[in-house]
Amino acid sequence: MSLLTVGSVAFDALETPFGKTDKIIGGAATYITLSASYFTKDNNLVAVVGDDFPQSMINDLNQHGINTEGLEIRQGEKTFFWSGKYHDDMNTRDTVEVQLNVMEHFDPIIPDAYQDCQYLMLGNTAPAIQQKVIERLTNRPKLIVLDTMNLWIDIANADLMNLLKLVDVLVVNDEEARQLTRQPSLVKAAAKIKEMGPQTVIIKKGEHGALLFQNDQVFFAPALPLAEVFDPTGAGDTFAGGFIGHLAKTDDISFDNMKRAIIYGSAMASFCVEKFGAERIMNLTDEEIKSRVDEFVKLSAFGL
Amino acid sequence: MSLLTVGSVAFDALETPFGKTDKIIGGAATYITLSASYFTKDNNLVAVVGDDFPQSMINDLNQHGINTEGLEIRQGEKTFFWSGKYHDDMNTRDTVEVQLNVMEHFDPIIPDAYQDCQYLMLGNTAPAIQQKVIERLTNRPKLIVLDTMNLWIDIANADLMNLLKLVDVLVVNDEEARQLTRQPSLVKAAAKIKEMGPQTVIIKKGEHGALLFQNDQVFFAPALPLAEVFDPTGAGDTFAGGFIGHLAKTDDISFDNMKRAIIYGSAMASFCVEKFGAERIMNLTDEEIKSRVDEFVKLSAFGL
Repeated sequence: MSLLTVGSVAFDALETPFGKTDKIIGGAATYITLSASYFTKDNNLVAVVGDDFPQSMINDLNQHGINTEGLEIRQGEKTFFWSGKYHDDMNTRDTVEVQLNVMEHFDPIIPDAYQDCQYLMLGNTAPAIQQKVIERLTNRPKLIVLDTMNLWIDIANADLMNLLKLVDVLVVNDEEARQLTRQPSLVKAAAKIKEMGPQTVIIKKGEHGALLFQNDQVFFAPALPLAEVFDPTGAGDTFAGGFIGHLAKTDDISFDNMKRAIIYGSAMASFCVEKFGAERIMNLTDEEIKSRVDEFVKLSAFGL
Repeated sequence: MSLLTVGSVAFDALETPFGKTDKIIGGAATYITLSASYFTKDNNLVAVVGDDFPQSMINDLNQHGINTEGLEIRQGEKTFFWSGKYHDDMNTRDTVEVQLNVMEHFDPIIPDAYQDCQYLMLGNTAPAIQQKVIERLTNRPKLIVLDTMNLWIDIANADLMNLLKLVDVLVVNDEEARQLTRQPSLVKAAAKIKEMGPQTVIIKKGEHGALLFQNDQVFFAPALPLAEVFDPTGAGDTFAGGFIGHLAKTDDISFDNMKRAIIYGSAMASFCVEKFGAERIMNLTDEEIKSRVDEFVKLSAFGL
């Protein structure tokens, strides 16, 4: 089934203990659609960039089967830019510079051809913008998945609370879940989020895996234990892309299929951190993904 | 097969955000043998207490089928005492008071009846004492499992390095693994520990589960997501007790069976934190354990 991803397409400049990059392609929606492209071929993007965004990068997205009809190119403006530096432990990072540029007035335009999308992934951006997307779709998608971040929990809490009533799945990390609910226990945090709207809650714990909560059921997906993490940028978005990509491909939103989807998301995220930015997830084969997923099976399978 | 556990039997006084206790029974070997008692009935303890240690507590151990012939009662001396207070997040604690008492000169005596033990669990105590146990056994056990802690890595590093060459399995938490090897990556830490001696390495990550490394294989066991952790004291020892208890019961040290053993250990640890001290693991039924293990299956099972 068709997938619509809305979020940022950006330039990133990254520094990790292993090196640094000049401006490379980044942004939540970039990682999500690229990751999803290995699962679904009906893969539609809504985002905004400036006229400094190279056609070659758009070509890269198109070559992955991503429909960029909804990628608005704002003339005379510049693309969103983020620059960050990771600490030695790779678990924390400082934002060096943010230039909102075109994102400051992002007003998502949904092409007519996207109106029938069944799966909607709202990549991290202001909740008011995310809500506009839902309102601008004539038919409600079968599944709406929302990502957000600490910034919006802080400065746009009322907007976020309204939005949460409209979505099916919330994907957040453990700190965001705690911040949103003021519950240190993730089990209680997930229960409280379900009261806010989304009936399915995914809590990402980075190197400690991810938890899926739905009704009274809970599933835990491990993260692959890695000897080296080269660059964690985009790992969470890549996870979300694998998750919704698998759901859109199979058009099955049962709990059992969501478990599989989280394993695929985790496998995609484990590739993402192997190289700078989106480089690794731009260059994957189906065989590599299959083999990585098999590693997850080996990692967590036991018989009693 | 027969299991021998050596370590501390102690008094603890605990304070958590949920309440506080007077002196209750504690000590690594107490948690280990109690946990193992649900798996193996040939369960032998070597430890030392003072003459202040109540016979009723020894009776409690005996009622769980624990052989206390090797529990030395030192007349005119006092039992090891530890008092600790947990912070609100339950992940960190302060030691309020330590009275080594009889542990200061612990010289483990192995009763003749214990000499044929096939499974040896060295609970956390000074490496020199742990090594004495191995030397005092006429026949080397089939499997020697070692626990240690940050204190010994700091102040008895040479002793610990010698000891590591003699054991098969090291059980440590993530911080201890990093401290021992100076490797932030747990994958690299496990590889380095294997160079130090033990061919199997278990790294406990508390609420984030546990990793089992052997040769080039790795297995991850999740921790059960809990709404409340009442008191984490002894959870690591209870984990170790379930692990070695299952191995001793089945007499199978294959990687596949170690995976099962870690699931049993994790299930036992999830009970331990539900009440103060060893209270919960003193009062378990086989049915409760089976049902908890089934929760682990549900938590981590997925089909592709």
